[in-house]
Amino acid sequence: MAESQEIELRGHIIDSGIMTQLFDRVMDMGGNFEILVFEVGKKKTDPSYARLRIAASSRETLQSILSELHRLGARPLKVKDVHLVPAEADRVVPKGFYTTTNHPTQVKYCGEWIPVQAIEMDFLIVVNPEEKIAVAKPLGKVQKGNLVVVGEQGVGVSYPERPREQSTFEFMHGTVSPERPSETLIAKIAKEILEVRKNGGKIAVVGGPAIIHTGADRALAGMIHDGYIDVLFAGNALATHDIEYNLYGTSLGMDISTGKPVMGGHRHHLYAISEIMRAGSIKNAVDTGVVTGGIMYECIKHNIPFVLAGSIRDDGPLPDVILDVMEAQDAMRKHIEGCSMVVMIATLLHSIAVGNCLPSSVKTVCVDINPAHLTKLMDRGTTQAIGIVSDAGTFLPLLAKQLEIQSCAAKK
Amino acid sequence: MAESQEIELRGHIIDSGIMTQLFDRVMDMGGNFEILVFEVGKKKTDPSYARLRIAASSRETLQSILSELHRLGARPLKVKDVHLVPAEADRVVPKGFYTTTNHPTQVKYCGEWIPVQAIEMDFLIVVNPEEKIAVAKPLGKVQKGNLVVVGEQGVGVSYPERPREQSTFEFMHGTVSPERPSETLIAKIAKEILEVRKNGGKIAVVGGPAIIHTGADRALAGMIHDGYIDVLFAGNALATHDIEYNLYGTSLGMDISTGKPVMGGHRHHLYAISEIMRAGSIKNAVDTGVVTGGIMYECIKHNIPFVLAGSIRDDGPLPDVILDVMEAQDAMRKHIEGCSMVVMIATLLHSIAVGNCLPSSVKTVCVDINPAHLTKLMDRGTTQAIGIVSDAGTFLPLLAKQLEIQSCAAKK
Amino acid sequence: MAESQEIELRGHIIDSGIMTQLFDRVMDMGGNFEILVFEVGKKKTDPSYARLRIAASSRETLQSILSELHRLGARPLKVKDVHLVPAEADRVVPKGFYTTTNHPTQVKYCGEWIPVQAIEMDFLIVVNPEEKIAVAKPLGKVQKGNLVVVGEQGVGVSYPERPREQSTFEFMHGTVSPERPSETLIAKIAKEILEVRKNGGKIAVVGGPAIIHTGADRALAGMIHDGYIDVLFAGNALATHDIEYNLYGTSLGMDISTGKPVMGGHRHHLYAISEIMRAGSIKNAVDTGVVTGGIMYECIKHNIPFVLAGSIRDDGPLPDVILDVMEAQDAMRKHIEGCSMVVMIATLLHSIAVGNCLPSSVKTVCVDINPAHLTKLMDRGTTQAIGIVSDAGTFLPLLAKQLEIQSCAAKK
Amino acid sequence: MAESQEIELRGHIIDSGIMTQLFDRVMDMGGNFEILVFEVGKKKTDPSYARLRIAASSRETLQSILSELHRLGARPLKVKDVHLVPAEADRVVPKGFYTTTNHPTQVKYCGEWIPVQAIEMDFLIVVNPEEKIAVAKPLGKVQKGNLVVVGEQGVGVSYPERPREQSTFEFMHGTVSPERPSETLIAKIAKEILEVRKNGGKIAVVGGPAIIHTGADRALAGMIHDGYIDVLFAGNALATHDIEYNLYGTSLGMDISTGKPVMGGHRHHLYAISEIMRAGSIKNAVDTGVVTGGIMYECIKHNIPFVLAGSIRDDGPLPDVILDVMEAQDAMRKHIEGCSMVVMIATLLHSIAVGNCLPSSVKTVCVDINPAHLTKLMDRGTTQAIGIVSDAGTFLPLLAKQLEIQSCAAKK
Repeated sequence: MAESQEIELRGHIIDSGIMTQLFDRVMDMGGNFEILVFEVGKKKTDPSYARLRIAASSRETLQSILSELHRLGARPLKVKDVHLVPAEADRVVPKGFYTTTNHPTQVKYCGEWIPVQAIEMDFLIVVNPEEKIAVAKPLGKVQKGNLVVVGEQGVGVSYPERPREQSTFEFMHGTVSPERPSETLIAKIAKEILEVRKNGGKIAVVGGPAIIHTGADRALAGMIHDGYIDVLFAGNALATHDIEYNLYGTSLGMDISTGKPVMGGHRHHLYAISEIMRAGSIKNAVDTGVVTGGIMYECIKHNIPFVLAGSIRDDGPLPDVILDVMEAQDAMRKHIEGCSMVVMIATLLHSIAVGNCLPSSVKTVCVDINPAHLTKLMDRGTTQAIGIVSDAGTFLPLLAKQLEIQSCAAKK
Repeated sequence: MAESQEIELRGHIIDSGIMTQLFDRVMDMGGNFEILVFEVGKKKTDPSYARLRIAASSRETLQSILSELHRLGARPLKVKDVHLVPAEADRVVPKGFYTTTNHPTQVKYCGEWIPVQAIEMDFLIVVNPEEKIAVAKPLGKVQKGNLVVVGEQGVGVSYPERPREQSTFEFMHGTVSPERPSETLIAKIAKEILEVRKNGGKIAVVGGPAIIHTGADRALAGMIHDGYIDVLFAGNALATHDIEYNLYGTSLGMDISTGKPVMGGHRHHLYAISEIMRAGSIKNAVDTGVVTGGIMYECIKHNIPFVLAGSIRDDGPLPDVILDVMEAQDAMRKHIEGCSMVVMIATLLHSIAVGNCLPSSVKTVCVDINPAHLTKLMDRGTTQAIGIVSDAGTFLPLLAKQLEIQSCAAKK
Repeated sequence: MAESQEIELRGHIIDSGIMTQLFDRVMDMGGNFEILVFEVGKKKTDPSYARLRIAASSRETLQSILSELHRLGARPLKVKDVHLVPAEADRVVPKGFYTTTNHPTQVKYCGEWIPVQAIEMDFLIVVNPEEKIAVAKPLGKVQKGNLVVVGEQGVGVSYPERPREQSTFEFMHGTVSPERPSETLIAKIAKEILEVRKNGGKIAVVGGPAIIHTGADRALAGMIHDGYIDVLFAGNALATHDIEYNLYGTSLGMDISTGKPVMGGHRHHLYAISEIMRAGSIKNAVDTGVVTGGIMYECIKHNIPFVLAGSIRDDGPLPDVILDVMEAQDAMRKHIEGCSMVVMIATLLHSIAVGNCLPSSVKTVCVDINPAHLTKLMDRGTTQAIGIVSDAGTFLPLLAKQLEIQSCAAKK
Repeated sequence: MAESQEIELRGHIIDSGIMTQLFDRVMDMGGNFEILVFEVGKKKTDPSYARLRIAASSRETLQSILSELHRLGARPLKVKDVHLVPAEADRVVPKGFYTTTNHPTQVKYCGEWIPVQAIEMDFLIVVNPEEKIAVAKPLGKVQKGNLVVVGEQGVGVSYPERPREQSTFEFMHGTVSPERPSETLIAKIAKEILEVRKNGGKIAVVGGPAIIHTGADRALAGMIHDGYIDVLFAGNALATHDIEYNLYGTSLGMDISTGKPVMGGHRHHLYAISEIMRAGSIKNAVDTGVVTGGIMYECIKHNIPFVLAGSIRDDGPLPDVILDVMEAQDAMRKHIEGCSMVVMIATLLHSIAVGNCLPSSVKTVCVDINPAHLTKLMDRGTTQAIGIVSDAGTFLPLLAKQLEIQSCAAKK
């Protein structure tokens, strides 16, 4: 082990599992380590501290290992300033550019640590030297002359800590299993939602059209009406079928109250889109009394913003749908800002898109009937995620009910 | 088309889809047909009648086609007596033996049509000439000298008719989709259960251990307590975890009320089995106050019979488990007799086993989180089957609730 | 049954299952029917003919039934001209507009039947009276003054016939099962591909990134190289990971040849996108020798057009990706024209999008590891569809092998 | 933290992830720890050593924590003899009995460590004081007077170490993903099989009937013929459909070579069972030339033992099927002894049953089309398990091919 370097980690490195990941990675990559200092925080609120010497047989392997440990929050004992290289042209960035994690990140510039704004996974970091500001940017938005961070030097990652008091998000972390006590879990999620609200946190919902098809739209509309939701992310299908149901009592041509297909019902979604086109927008349709209930109606009535992102399988689409996918991403980002919790229901496409934009601190609840979808969603670097294999049509009504029961109980 | 034969069909052959299947099979098999008579029943209660000439290019193909049509209820205009051949030895049966469908079946013997008793799919028919009785028997129970029906001659199948008034079972028939209005569907199933009860019908439940793991055991125990269930088919795991929950508050070591694993909880299922072994049986454990609640407790308290069928993955097992799989099948058959409805929840093994024994007239409701399991279950020849992709933990509590609401409403 | 009307059907109405669907729908909707004439084609090539009287208790029900039968190809004995109403404004269409099926369709105008061009499901029909041309258009492209067909009067649908000689597409029709003889099936699909090529048919592939992740990219690149594919429909992910693999030997940071993650590999996909951004386009990157192999390389080298449709979960994206989803749909439509066969592999989003644009006559093969995805894909009105539950990583290499074996055998 | 105790761990405690699990459990359970000694092995072959003080706020919590750590191999510094209590009656065991892991285990008796024989998960340990032998026994086999270990005192668990050189089993450990390079993975598994054979290791296959339905039977029969398999675990269905295919060319009535259903084919599986009943056993049927090929034939011809375990969904069953599930378990155990590797293909029931009986050192490869089944199988405490989401029909032929290629290459 010819090459070695000392690194240090601070924080709740035991509870959060960082230490264990660190050991594993070093060993996986053929390196070795020596524990120089290891001070475990005495009280729950005390951070721990560790200093280790990482060794490897070659300079290159050592760099690879350090690069991985960097992403867990490990830092060399002495950190130099970030290395900045200007972009040659719009979207043409320097080789070896640093790519971000979705954890809080700082860069050392002129000897000072400055936080990276708008952090998101797989972005670049651009530093504005005059204003001493560092901002995370997607590759496609880097402009000529932007000073881009290259390499890991001078970049610090704050790997999220797992608080010692276990919340629902901790005990479920990373697991997706249909064999969980469903009602217990729903009650816990309702509790978390009320907690987030009490603390002034912002809650987003990402939803797919199965919410309408399974008859859970009333539950979701009720939750919007009652002020539990701050922003809705969805696509053309959810909005279309919601409006179809309000106008014709059907969803994809099926009568929700009987579950039976209605004659001529296959036309209803197109008729619904046509009505909104005629009105000019969903808002106009609500304002003029064309649409009188449902999820979109409650959003309009309660000034809850929504982003309807376009997709290549859209019929119509509704005039409110954002056709350009990058514009849609920007709209999502704008509304994600400040969210503390995101509930994702029965949509893989929109959930992954929103998940991509989330910092790792946001709590996410993913509900899908397909365990494989949940596995994909949970694998996105969120540290506080719950995956529930369930049916939107039974999950949402039970959640709405729990919110009602628990908020009544709280008022007493 | 050198070879041809006339056949006839009677009954609700249009509504039940028999006519359409018949057309398809003839064409699929390279045959041809001519409609000689086609009288559609004028009123809902009137049967239809069709006479067709089936033609094929060879005698062999014609026989194959007629053999398929036979299973749909088609008969030659003139039916001869069944052909009977004695079994050479126990389990050694004549070649070309007739294998049954799960539809009501008759054999023509001495010029008379006699019904086949205990009909079940993939059985043989044995005729007792003295008593003029025909009984369906599994291959493994045919005894030396039994007169076994060979070929289709003289066998008549009554393909089940689909009544014109559509019930829930008709409109859902054969479809498995997670995108159905869940609450609507659950309300309909509650209605069917109450209907069956009102008409004196017998209801069976087939259940897997996920009922306990997802916290739906209270709902099922309640339904047994309230008299909705007449027999329970399950395995060692459901009973063990039900008792584990009653004794230790855990299921597979997880605390159902918090959803968290309990220290040392991995031992609880073995401790539960040990307690029942000590008592001698579940009944003894209930009678002596060891077990004081849960699904098995309610079965014992309300004299609801249960069949716990053994499987090779069993721990223990409990003393009540039937270890011999053929004995377990016989026990299931005994209790299936007279059932009008079977609700299958979250178990593939036990549901297929019970499904194999059901005559086609029994209504079945299959609930599973895995659509592939439902597809397998629905493909068993039951003509009135509903497949619901849902989570036992949300489905059963909502069903129990609906039963309560609807039965209260009915009393008023 | 106070109200009745006579209708007629022509063609292979038995083989294609039309007759059977017709019976079912009439009965499902509470109507009744009387068969007035039923002439079954005597030879395989002869069409059949049926005339029926459809009856219902009310004018409204009768209309509903006739409207459904219309979509199966049934027509009144005397057909009047289509009813045309001008669009008030762009995208504002007359109420009760006719919505298309994906079957060949004709409209009667000035007493003549004229074919509807560019037919696609859920479109409107616009008639140009001067040129006597009828074109299917999506709702969003109807312009002020366009004469839009309203109601079903004067519209004729040619429900696709199922030829009596059964091909692979017929025998598998509509079924999705993992329990099929896989190698047999792959050999059959290879045979169909060679058949289509021999007859000058055009073949499209729709592919997802799992093709790269599972190491099946070489097989697909080989098929493009060997001239089996005419157009590729995919998204940013497939192209990015294909190029990542060519540049760095990884896919999503995993070394395809060893299956292990590569240090720093999580950056490779962004580095790959950056290289293409620097080059300006995939074509430039191939022409300047930056990209030297893979699926996209083969497309460029052999002038195979590709459509990379944008989605909201895209990183980057590559400069070749079409960001506007409606533009992407148009690009897909342009290249779908003239396709006889589409092979869809491991992508739900792009497969549904392409499937939406297909006329019902196009043969489709859908391969996915998830049976639920196949069920969704098969349910799109294509009459010749095969669903195969399989793994791209084993399916494509075996298919490429079969194509090689069978084409060699054919040359001998 | 009033209560504390010192424990020690030895071995490859870093590489194997034991240390990291230990930290997590202590924290999860509200305890605390202090690292007293931590010596990391300098060379790959050197074991590490750690001594920690575990603290908790109460005696009870501390015991719970120590009980969990025990299962990871941690031991108190001074170990006392095991506590033995005689069983009151057959199957009636002392309260608080120790339940085993599937890791190598020792008990301290009369001051000496003696190994526990026949270790398997969820068993009890019985000590024979005369012969100084300790044996693991299932609850149901404990006899009156047997001395049963109670509590963890004196029991030592050797948590399996993960060797530093990573094999296929290490890098895949615990992950189930359809998005892996399939051919690469299959080549690696072939390499492992050849490695096991070279070292004289025993290989078992657990298989479901989908092997026959998907046409992979020839590949498996070939592998048995070529001497790669030492024992086969399956059920009535695999054997029946294998024989059906040999006798009639069909599997579940479908012609494997064309993939089409054969007329009357639904009877073939019963006819196949009937033939074996007539012969008396599969062996007799092979010896008398009734069965002339297939998986069972190769087993008989090459003296490869098989266990056909009965299940409640069996038709027939074949005379070779073991009807009593506990007898079947014993038969499985007998043949599992000495196995180094188990390949589980397309059966959940039999795979779980076999998996239950495996010590943790056995390598397992699980292949299933359903990722949820793999998740269940991988969750059984095996430390070297690979889960592959794939189709038996493509996986097995590719594996057989790789075995051929690699074994040829090895001979050169």
